[in-house]
Amino acid sequence: MQLSDLDTPALVIDLEIMERNLARMADYAAAHALRLRPHTKTHKIPALARRQLDLGAVGLTVAKVGEAEVMQASGSPELLVAYPIIGRTKLDRLCKLNPALELTESLDSEVAAKQLSDAAAAAGRTIQVLAEVDVGLGRVGVTPGESLRTLAEAINRLPGLQFAGIAFYPGHIKRMDEEATGLLRRLGTLLDQAIGDLERAGFPVRIVSGGSTPTLLRSHEVSRLNEIRPGTYIFNDWNTVACGACAIEDCAAAVLTTVVSTSVQDQIIIDGGSKTFSSDRLQGSAEPSFGYLQASPEAVFGKMNEEHGFIDIRETGRTWSVGDKIRLIPNHVCVAVNLHEQVYGLRGDTVEEIWRVEARGKLQ
Amino acid sequence: MQLSDLDTPALVIDLEIMERNLARMADYAAAHALRLRPHTKTHKIPALARRQLDLGAVGLTVAKVGEAEVMQASGSPELLVAYPIIGRTKLDRLCKLNPALELTESLDSEVAAKQLSDAAAAAGRTIQVLAEVDVGLGRVGVTPGESLRTLAEAINRLPGLQFAGIAFYPGHIKRMDEEATGLLRRLGTLLDQAIGDLERAGFPVRIVSGGSTPTLLRSHEVSRLNEIRPGTYIFNDWNTVACGACAIEDCAAAVLTTVVSTSVQDQIIIDGGSKTFSSDRLQGSAEPSFGYLQASPEAVFGKMNEEHGFIDIRETGRTWSVGDKIRLIPNHVCVAVNLHEQVYGLRGDTVEEIWRVEARGKLQ
Repeated sequence: MQLSDLDTPALVIDLEIMERNLARMADYAAAHALRLRPHTKTHKIPALARRQLDLGAVGLTVAKVGEAEVMQASGSPELLVAYPIIGRTKLDRLCKLNPALELTESLDSEVAAKQLSDAAAAAGRTIQVLAEVDVGLGRVGVTPGESLRTLAEAINRLPGLQFAGIAFYPGHIKRMDEEATGLLRRLGTLLDQAIGDLERAGFPVRIVSGGSTPTLLRSHEVSRLNEIRPGTYIFNDWNTVACGACAIEDCAAAVLTTVVSTSVQDQIIIDGGSKTFSSDRLQGSAEPSFGYLQASPEAVFGKMNEEHGFIDIRETGRTWSVGDKIRLIPNHVCVAVNLHEQVYGLRGDTVEEIWRVEARGKLQ
Repeated sequence: MQLSDLDTPALVIDLEIMERNLARMADYAAAHALRLRPHTKTHKIPALARRQLDLGAVGLTVAKVGEAEVMQASGSPELLVAYPIIGRTKLDRLCKLNPALELTESLDSEVAAKQLSDAAAAAGRTIQVLAEVDVGLGRVGVTPGESLRTLAEAINRLPGLQFAGIAFYPGHIKRMDEEATGLLRRLGTLLDQAIGDLERAGFPVRIVSGGSTPTLLRSHEVSRLNEIRPGTYIFNDWNTVACGACAIEDCAAAVLTTVVSTSVQDQIIIDGGSKTFSSDRLQGSAEPSFGYLQASPEAVFGKMNEEHGFIDIRETGRTWSVGDKIRLIPNHVCVAVNLHEQVYGLRGDTVEEIWRVEARGKLQ
């Protein structure tokens, strides 16, 4: 099957770029002795998780129990659920995963720890737990100091749980720029204090797990950090470019669309909108812009409805006809993948792989 | 099964409100002798399409061939594909639908008409065609006058096609307000001229199909309009309230979530973000706001990531605990439904129906 045989809209992956992205991150983690536990939320495909493991990943990260269930097929020896799982139904499902699988969960409350402990004890299972620390984003995570010690103590005390370290997500570092240097330094100091404090209280911190896309390749500058959980790096997207973490040539995923209307002057309509790309805005951009048109970067994909993409072609100096196909790099590839039943892996113009997005829409 | 048994996040439908919404629109259409061809993109569920037909809908509207395939199960005598279908693969699938089904397509180019004609002729099928007219939104649709006459002529000439009338979408009328009165009047004048022009050229206009949510219940004021294709009315959403077309009490659909973290002061985190609600903004609102918390309207759902909803509770005067469940009305219910594998129909606190979202993610 060739690229030209694909009906649209379709999410296509340039395999060469993807493989380069995978190798780059594996090499980086190895060079700095960082544990690599890729977040599978970006691709949602066990076969791609397998590739990450084959390149040296120590395990995988997921956000939902439903994703963990699907990712068992990757053959990973272990899984980190980087989300506080609340409610017995989900926790029982978690504890029913393959008993050979080492499970870790990050959580930020005694309620979550107690619920996990009850389910683990009932299932006769031991679960590793990372205490989630808020390092500046203000989303989940306890404040370092007394709250963190109290949480570690609760985890340590509860049956079926083993305190394994800390997790954090520095989502407040938005760009790879001058300011990031200072923010990373402050992050290092905060972690040193938090870890020292825990260790003095008698809780050895084996795993220090964190990082975010913009400053991923500077993770080694944060002294005690020993594990990264990147997701987006496998494909990258326009946000990754916009935050300075990669070049447009490093974007492996694009949405292939067809021009369905040219009735309005200076504009073309493509057969993909919010149901195909998601309506996630481009980070750090005041003007809405929903995808990067590789072949004509002057085109502005500034508006969308569910099934219609509006592309302003005024500045492109060219025209398109109904039936022409157009590839666009999405703003946020993780949510775009979640909208597609399958993705197509291209080697040049040949469709070499068709992967079902098996963990798509696993909300629970 | 009771509401309290549902795991989260889950999309729940208040059946009493939904039934009231369905009846109101059916009554309105009947009172004004308007053909009602509901757009199924909102619910994506054949069983709900069946209810619309049982209440007097003449047929159904879809946007994609994949949706048409699924909606055959509703038993509708006819389907309108309100989207220009480009490419032989999709058109062959369209023509392979149950031969007893009367098919209509709206389109805005001779290329689309020619492609449809080729596929219809090859399949020995006659397809009704509506010429799509741009009435001010600037999305798809030809300009009334010469372009429209030329398109009607092409449709009329091509084998396998029957010119049935015109379609339009007045998406430029954003609110039910004073300004809308003038815009509706201008729309009526524009349609009168376009139709008169077509009829003088020898193309009888049987169907005049259009309307949009904000001014739906004023469709009868537009003199020649004889068909409406509403979608959102079955559930309504926060956008419908925001544009003045319904009250919050008319919103049947909500996302049931669980509080998973209360670590940050004045804020709670719920287990639903852009993967559950979609990242569609609230129309006409400068500040981001992603859902309406019925039990505490002062709460501000102002930020989200894929799996995290950030709710600012400062102005609510109350607190929540990890494990508490919260119902929120989404901004845009159509895209939210598309993210869920199933929806739950509630009668009071009893789960009376579980519907699979069968046309979910039909991108092609």
